[in-house]
Amino acid sequence: MWKDVRNWLDKLTPAQVISGYYLLAVSVSVLLLRIPAVHKPGVEVAFIDTVFTAVSAVSVTGLSVVDISETYSVFGYFVIMFILQFGGIGIMALGTFFWLLLGRKIGLRGRRLIMVDHNQYALSGLVNLVKEIIKIILVIETLGALILGFHFLKYYPAWDEAFLHALFASVSATTNGGMDITGASLKPYAGDYFVQLINIILITLGAIGFPVLIELKQYLFRNKWDQEPSFRFSLFAKLTTVTYAALLVFGTVILLIMEFNQYFKGMNWHESFFYAFFQSATTRSGGLSTMDVNEFTMPTLIIMSILMFIGASPSSVGGGIRTTTFAVNILFIYHFAKGNRDIKIFKREIHEDDILKSLAITLLAIGMCFFSVVILSITEKQMELIEIIFEVCSAFGTTGLSLGITPELSMIGKCIIMALMFIGRIGLTSFLFIIGGKEKQPNFHYPKERVIIG
Amino acid sequence: MWKDVRNWLDKLTPAQVISGYYLLAVSVSVLLLRIPAVHKPGVEVAFIDTVFTAVSAVSVTGLSVVDISETYSVFGYFVIMFILQFGGIGIMALGTFFWLLLGRKIGLRGRRLIMVDHNQYALSGLVNLVKEIIKIILVIETLGALILGFHFLKYYPAWDEAFLHALFASVSATTNGGMDITGASLKPYAGDYFVQLINIILITLGAIGFPVLIELKQYLFRNKWDQEPSFRFSLFAKLTTVTYAALLVFGTVILLIMEFNQYFKGMNWHESFFYAFFQSATTRSGGLSTMDVNEFTMPTLIIMSILMFIGASPSSVGGGIRTTTFAVNILFIYHFAKGNRDIKIFKREIHEDDILKSLAITLLAIGMCFFSVVILSITEKQMELIEIIFEVCSAFGTTGLSLGITPELSMIGKCIIMALMFIGRIGLTSFLFIIGGKEKQPNFHYPKERVIIG
Ligand SMILES: [K+]
Ligand SMILES: [K+]
Repeated sequence: MWKDVRNWLDKLTPAQVISGYYLLAVSVSVLLLRIPAVHKPGVEVAFIDTVFTAVSAVSVTGLSVVDISETYSVFGYFVIMFILQFGGIGIMALGTFFWLLLGRKIGLRGRRLIMVDHNQYALSGLVNLVKEIIKIILVIETLGALILGFHFLKYYPAWDEAFLHALFASVSATTNGGMDITGASLKPYAGDYFVQLINIILITLGAIGFPVLIELKQYLFRNKWDQEPSFRFSLFAKLTTVTYAALLVFGTVILLIMEFNQYFKGMNWHESFFYAFFQSATTRSGGLSTMDVNEFTMPTLIIMSILMFIGASPSSVGGGIRTTTFAVNILFIYHFAKGNRDIKIFKREIHEDDILKSLAITLLAIGMCFFSVVILSITEKQMELIEIIFEVCSAFGTTGLSLGITPELSMIGKCIIMALMFIGRIGLTSFLFIIGGKEKQPNFHYPKERVIIG
Repeated sequence: MWKDVRNWLDKLTPAQVISGYYLLAVSVSVLLLRIPAVHKPGVEVAFIDTVFTAVSAVSVTGLSVVDISETYSVFGYFVIMFILQFGGIGIMALGTFFWLLLGRKIGLRGRRLIMVDHNQYALSGLVNLVKEIIKIILVIETLGALILGFHFLKYYPAWDEAFLHALFASVSATTNGGMDITGASLKPYAGDYFVQLINIILITLGAIGFPVLIELKQYLFRNKWDQEPSFRFSLFAKLTTVTYAALLVFGTVILLIMEFNQYFKGMNWHESFFYAFFQSATTRSGGLSTMDVNEFTMPTLIIMSILMFIGASPSSVGGGIRTTTFAVNILFIYHFAKGNRDIKIFKREIHEDDILKSLAITLLAIGMCFFSVVILSITEKQMELIEIIFEVCSAFGTTGLSLGITPELSMIGKCIIMALMFIGRIGLTSFLFIIGGKEKQPNFHYPKERVIIG
């Protein structure tokens, strides 16, 4: 029986598996969210809004057409946390799995990821991997919930209330779900730097990418007396982590500069810093906020849009074009302008297939977001252009920040945003292979001829 | 002496020659436009505005901080026509020249461009090429001026007035200068389909690319009794012409659809069609208009922005990323999604260097325009986001359409727009080589390592 399942799974492409899992998770979530007990007494939710909430939760985006705290019961909160786990961890696990599988297939060495190496079969490798991911994430979430729970006692005198808030906050931050049961995201903790720091750490652990977490665990728990040569982090881990950190710093600095004389006017340095730091961290894919982003000026909102569009690391709980895609683009353009063809970084060279993939994905993502903005500017006539651009980038980056237009979206608008959350979450690589399929490459060539470019 | 000049020219890179020519042309234009007689009596123009007008005219963009018809005298009109010729024809000639030179260097066959083939030296080839281009463009402009001149007698009873208007209109359309002496672009001829058709033809002849005109001339005047094999258009000519036509049709259709129930409401079919057709044609790089583009709805303005960003053909009087760049991007993404690595089109294959170049240029252009929008949204706080996006795309595409904000730009705003017109006109390929230079490629390699993308 396992053998049959394995044979069947082997025939599916990674893209089919990932999007199949996604659609299944959405269907189950819709059913769960139609159980009457999930709502607060007397509250009714339109079917399209249930679907939207399900898609938003499975994609761990957090854009919401209803107010979670006013709509759902405590049972509903647990259902949502359950969905966030399946959306966040599930797709992360599948993404990581296929990456490892690809590495094994093309015979890569030097990547010290033991899980698949020690397993002969894809399926048992997958099972072990999922176990490992669930274990790591649950440990992180539990620690987060405990730390926040004790701290929240100063806000919520009742233990059960404090720990419910802490658990939801921890799950929402770690899975980058971006949802809240405070009714106002993390604004109630705008002056509480401890809560913000814990949230930033949880968001980052979720969004930094699972392969990085595994390599980090291996590095920390390695046998230091081992005869093996010194541990080396993979190029992927280095590239994505450095890019992640660079975006975090860039976002913080640019927010401080742009809003210096605007939103931050009259604030002291640590207030300004924490507002900038948290809002920068959340654009990676977290989606929580400690302020109303509407208060920022236009240029800041444009920059936040692009930061959300870039998104988080691959094989993480985040979305967007991903940090590595962005990094490879920047490196490519820099080297291209210099007249170099090879991209050298961290004493390795980037494979040309990965360069082409990055460029294709980025252009396609820009085209897709552009198309979405045009459609939304037709269907949502009353909305400002920046509100639409921000919403589109937030959906594609599965970030979940909004200038407040989500509940007022038309039916077509909601469908566009759902599609963006789906594509942003499963990643454009997967999406490309779904729509394009694998065509047989005809075995002949025409003469090459140059054309004038630009 | 010629030998010295040739040696000196041989040492310069194409990018240096083109941008050197551009800067020289701007300097001369500024001097010319400071001659008091160019202004109408009593009119004074600030120095920055003279520089802006010079840059706009040399880049044949047509964005204007002053009203040409109210600011400049008849002598001034002739100075501006003179500058448009140097900006339009000069850079087109240089671009075409380097393209042919490259073709000869890398030993391409099948391209039936005789000029350089029959000349042993680059310099004499250049001289002949410039002569050929000037001849073709002057013939087109003269024909345009004559046809429009006789027709304009119905608007301007005085012969000299009619032919002055016709000459300026013909030069402005053919060089895609986008400037006017009516004070209202082509709005006075909004009901005159003949004038519009002639303008569209002139704009297209300027923006379709000089290599296409040469091939077309060769095709039309070929010796049909020749023993040679049948004439073949180059891949470049086919690709750029098909893309140009496709963009023209797409623009017309999309404008008709988008404004069907908006601006075109209550108009009969030929009115709607001509408004859509002319405004579509002008986004390639013409910049003239038969209506106030402010009247269009937001989605239409977004689409027009992207059409201007794409721009005209390479080696033409236009700007933007160019039609071929756009076409190669689209083809690449389509084939990438299909899982193909080779791009086959018109029974030829696109060279991988041209693919990489297209992708790099497009991403860089998007980044540059994005950066410009952010800066302008800081410096021009009172302006709408769509006004800024439209202006930036218009400058980079050297189109010259505007939602009316050009005269109100701040000093920094004017500098940004001037920089965009410069880069858009010389092309990002040239610009890249100026800023990047040619670095010696180090002769060693690191191991390649894969990373997860998207
Ligand atoms: K999120
Ligand atoms: K123009």
